[in-house]
Amino acid sequence: MDNFIEQAIALATENVRRDGGPFAALVVKDGIVIAAGTNQVARGNDPTAHAEIVAIREACRVLGDFQLTGCDIYASCEPCPMCLGAIYWARPARVVFAATHDDAAAAGFDDAFIYRQIGTPPAARAIPMIHAPHTDAARPFREWTDKPDKTKY
Amino acid sequence: MDNFIEQAIALATENVRRDGGPFAALVVKDGIVIAAGTNQVARGNDPTAHAEIVAIREACRVLGDFQLTGCDIYASCEPCPMCLGAIYWARPARVVFAATHDDAAAAGFDDAFIYRQIGTPPAARAIPMIHAPHTDAARPFREWTDKPDKTKY
Repeated sequence: MDNFIEQAIALATENVRRDGGPFAALVVKDGIVIAAGTNQVARGNDPTAHAEIVAIREACRVLGDFQLTGCDIYASCEPCPMCLGAIYWARPARVVFAATHDDAAAAGFDDAFIYRQIGTPPAARAIPMIHAPHTDAARPFREWTDKPDKTKY
Repeated sequence: MDNFIEQAIALATENVRRDGGPFAALVVKDGIVIAAGTNQVARGNDPTAHAEIVAIREACRVLGDFQLTGCDIYASCEPCPMCLGAIYWARPARVVFAATHDDAAAAGFDDAFIYRQIGTPPAARAIPMIHAPHTDAARPFREWTDKPDKTKY
């Protein structure tokens, strides 16, 4: 475990030197690193390109699957809410992280605000999320439910 | 607002007919749709390819920016925790959604479990998240903080 965490920390440090953000993550299966990701938000103009998201997408590409069954994720830092959600959809066996939310916040990366917003009613959030009821709102779900050959995910 | 919500619902329905998941999202700026996304999880072997994530990435590519300042997101369904996190990092002005969490859950897409997991201590989660302290854990942040030309995000 220590070796993979050290690799993740080293990759995060290297990413800073290459003008990326101070985050990295590895996906490990059967003791082998099958994917590595670093924060590419600014470089790639992609606010979703956190290290864990980049590594999860790459690992799924390598495995040809949308699930990371039996995989471990080693992250240089505790996941933000977006990455935590992605981890649950990808379903690895476990996640190991080195730096904490507090370490990240001290460097100006404060996701505690987002964690707090999750518990706030949608319309009252800092980014208002407005429910616009529509008679056809459930139609995509009805068509989905009626399909005989759907893939559940 | 109704027109964009109707477009999002129609796109989600069309995506089901094309063997995608029953979700779609649009990014609108100055009254114009600048990006559209549909759920591509199974088709693309990408657990992060929810409609909102696909649309946010595309909109940022179009704008050449990692922020969606002044944009609205119209989603066929209320965002899951991953997409909610992505929305906060992308910072659009607001989000409008048609179907609710309950509609999605009734079709078998239950993200309430993930919302509950967020409030669970990391090591006790269904996917255990283990803190592995390391003497170099904060090193990427230190190098980041010392950089004179860093981009804050």
